[in-house]
Amino acid sequence: MNKARTDAVDLNVLAEQPPAVPESFRNCEFVFLANTAPSLQMKLLDPLAHRSFVAADTMNLWIETASEDLKQLLQRIDLLILNDGEAKLLTGQHNLVSAAKSILDMGPRFVVIKKGEHGSMLYDAAGNIFLLPAYPTAVVIDPTGAGDSFAGGMMGHLSQSGTVDVISLRNAMVYGTVMASFTIGDFSIHGIKTATREMIDERFDRLRKITQF
Amino acid sequence: MNKARTDAVDLNVLAEQPPAVPESFRNCEFVFLANTAPSLQMKLLDPLAHRSFVAADTMNLWIETASEDLKQLLQRIDLLILNDGEAKLLTGQHNLVSAAKSILDMGPRFVVIKKGEHGSMLYDAAGNIFLLPAYPTAVVIDPTGAGDSFAGGMMGHLSQSGTVDVISLRNAMVYGTVMASFTIGDFSIHGIKTATREMIDERFDRLRKITQF
Repeated sequence: MNKARTDAVDLNVLAEQPPAVPESFRNCEFVFLANTAPSLQMKLLDPLAHRSFVAADTMNLWIETASEDLKQLLQRIDLLILNDGEAKLLTGQHNLVSAAKSILDMGPRFVVIKKGEHGSMLYDAAGNIFLLPAYPTAVVIDPTGAGDSFAGGMMGHLSQSGTVDVISLRNAMVYGTVMASFTIGDFSIHGIKTATREMIDERFDRLRKITQF
Repeated sequence: MNKARTDAVDLNVLAEQPPAVPESFRNCEFVFLANTAPSLQMKLLDPLAHRSFVAADTMNLWIETASEDLKQLLQRIDLLILNDGEAKLLTGQHNLVSAAKSILDMGPRFVVIKKGEHGSMLYDAAGNIFLLPAYPTAVVIDPTGAGDSFAGGMMGHLSQSGTVDVISLRNAMVYGTVMASFTIGDFSIHGIKTATREMIDERFDRLRKITQF
């Protein structure tokens, strides 16, 4: 289940104009641009004048069909979150360490490369690295939404902590990993819907225990 | 470079009788049975009366052609070290967490599954887990020998520490990972030949720094 194969893409509402950002959202400091056309992602960014940290997701479709827009977007965000296949496609680099460095050269201060069951990696422009295994899961029901859960958990922790530094970013990735582990354990949102704060923190602590030396 | 494809196997000396174990080796407590026919691995084990911890490597060829011998061997060793593809082939399990558990059911107290650029995982019969990313390497010249370097670094640390417990096993895997990172950086043994103790400990410390949270 570690490689995605695109059979077809139907953009539905994603092909339309971006929705108006509600007034109550306009003072957001931490912004996550979920995967859609880079041109729409940029339009969503404009009304958010108080943004201090912007992360974005993307996919193979935009890398292949909207690369100029994507390059512009990369100049305007702080963090790009993408998977290993997308990182290779975007950079032409087969080695993920090299791919991460190439992405940082394109603009963002941070890049997170997700590797599904093999975990995730954070690289920043200052040369800092963080490598995190996935939460071990014997039963994988459906990986759909794992990437969005990862990004959501990550952004949730960053906005709660209010600061972006080496420690908060690492902890944010761990929360993202934990949220994704709940998502893949069931269909739809059932896995995360039933996850309590206590269950989340339990997996956070366990992931620390099984990775420290 | 993360998947091995077997084009041909020529066993050469591995098809012969096992060499006589020299007298000076007979009091070894820590034994590593490098990859060869499981029947030969067992014969090499017999003269080592003082063995207290035995690790073994294996490969797809023996899983496919000598599974009965391999099952006997697994009853006589403490640790099996194998890669992800071999673990799936041996157990019929696609999920590596499940595969690790199946291997422990076959006999060994410990199993290490190597995942190349994605790191390695340790499972033990008591339910302990350790997950370790690979040392990040932008330049990979030749992965030949990475697995043997990993096993060598691991066994070297275990025999030096003299004990096998959760801590020594974790540190041993880190040393194995570091040794493999030197091996893949050059052809033949050039990468490890020039690695000093200081260089090894430097990578050990760096791997800790970039994985802790």
